[in-house]
Amino acid sequence: MSQSLKFYFDFLNQSSRALYIFLEASKIPFEAIPISMVKGEHLTGEFRDKVNRFRKLPAITDHGYQLSESVAIFRHLSREKLVPEHWYPRRQLGRSRTDEYLAWQQTNMDVACTDYFQQKWLIPHLQKTRASDNALNVAGKHLDGTLNDFEQLFLSSHKFILGENISFADLSAICEIDQTKSVGFSAFKNRHKLSRWYDLVRDELGPYYKSVQEQFDAALKQSNQREQRQGEVQAQALKQ
Amino acid sequence: MSQSLKFYFDFLNQSSRALYIFLEASKIPFEAIPISMVKGEHLTGEFRDKVNRFRKLPAITDHGYQLSESVAIFRHLSREKLVPEHWYPRRQLGRSRTDEYLAWQQTNMDVACTDYFQQKWLIPHLQKTRASDNALNVAGKHLDGTLNDFEQLFLSSHKFILGENISFADLSAICEIDQTKSVGFSAFKNRHKLSRWYDLVRDELGPYYKSVQEQFDAALKQSNQREQRQGEVQAQALKQ
Repeated sequence: MSQSLKFYFDFLNQSSRALYIFLEASKIPFEAIPISMVKGEHLTGEFRDKVNRFRKLPAITDHGYQLSESVAIFRHLSREKLVPEHWYPRRQLGRSRTDEYLAWQQTNMDVACTDYFQQKWLIPHLQKTRASDNALNVAGKHLDGTLNDFEQLFLSSHKFILGENISFADLSAICEIDQTKSVGFSAFKNRHKLSRWYDLVRDELGPYYKSVQEQFDAALKQSNQREQRQGEVQAQALKQ
Repeated sequence: MSQSLKFYFDFLNQSSRALYIFLEASKIPFEAIPISMVKGEHLTGEFRDKVNRFRKLPAITDHGYQLSESVAIFRHLSREKLVPEHWYPRRQLGRSRTDEYLAWQQTNMDVACTDYFQQKWLIPHLQKTRASDNALNVAGKHLDGTLNDFEQLFLSSHKFILGENISFADLSAICEIDQTKSVGFSAFKNRHKLSRWYDLVRDELGPYYKSVQEQFDAALKQSNQREQRQGEVQAQALKQ
């Protein structure tokens, strides 16, 4: 059945994973439309012309209405669909606290995690080179500082960022951290509070999270294998 | 009378000006507490310890509840206070469109405008040097590209970003552009749509905007004069 809500995403992108899990866990009916950023599919064809003038992922169309920017999509879904209250709670100014985290994430956590992922995997992958030790070192230090800030500013003795219930702040944050963990960064070394929180969030998200993580890992692996095959074909061609 | 809402701001900062105008134009009662970032007042004393753990401006306390991040403060005020509907309209998905702009602004417009202001004025002012031609050139090109994107993505034949009524998207955007205009950037050259929109927003905001702009200009002038006096005292001391 064709759904009124179409969700365009790439599992290699952290905000895409967060929204995918949010949609699934909230049981919002949607049509999932994967778009490969590595292949440049977000820059061409119907996606560029009819779906997203920003040429960015994730994106939605809802009854034909186009919307970009993951935090805007999250709020749109919270207003327009039936969504469990704990994701964006009205009580005890939970929405203000979620908004504060999401704004902080956009200029801190997201920048640091994206940069590390790009230096470690994306740039070497696209340019078929080794990662630059220097760039990786800078990105790693920046990420270390940001994770320290995250622990200090947002994690407390409570289970989750807002208190005893999981919210979209936790879901967004775990997907950011996974972006660096997937390419080998040790986020939990000397960060016991972060490590405890991570396990709690992962367990609370359960199968929705597990399934998306598996697809993220598979997408990384597939890209690596494709690159390796291309390298072998090129090496073979050079030998002939 | 002591107000339950305390607003901590610096007129040299664009988000502080946007929220100040929003509070005044919405007739929300508040206590205005200026904090000088150039003097480092946001890093010390009561502000650091009791107001804002992020050490950032703008910030509020509302009935003792601390909140940072300008977009989170805007949404908090929209939920908790009586605010005219046009700033964040429910009709025709106006909130989704406002959210989309504000998220785009945070990683595009705000980054480009802040960088230009820092290269042109703040860094030379704090380090008592001339602006670096190279850094200014890079910042200027980035800003030009961002303003082109803003015009193309968000301005149309309508008066304002959302349509015929002014919203917080317009107010935020004009304060971003003023950050570069105040230090001599020609934002309107070959940008007729931007220029027309700017005039409409300025006129619509009327005296609230005018008064804040005057205080912004005065704060810049005062900082420049203080620096000049210090320079003269130092030159005099060197002569003796």
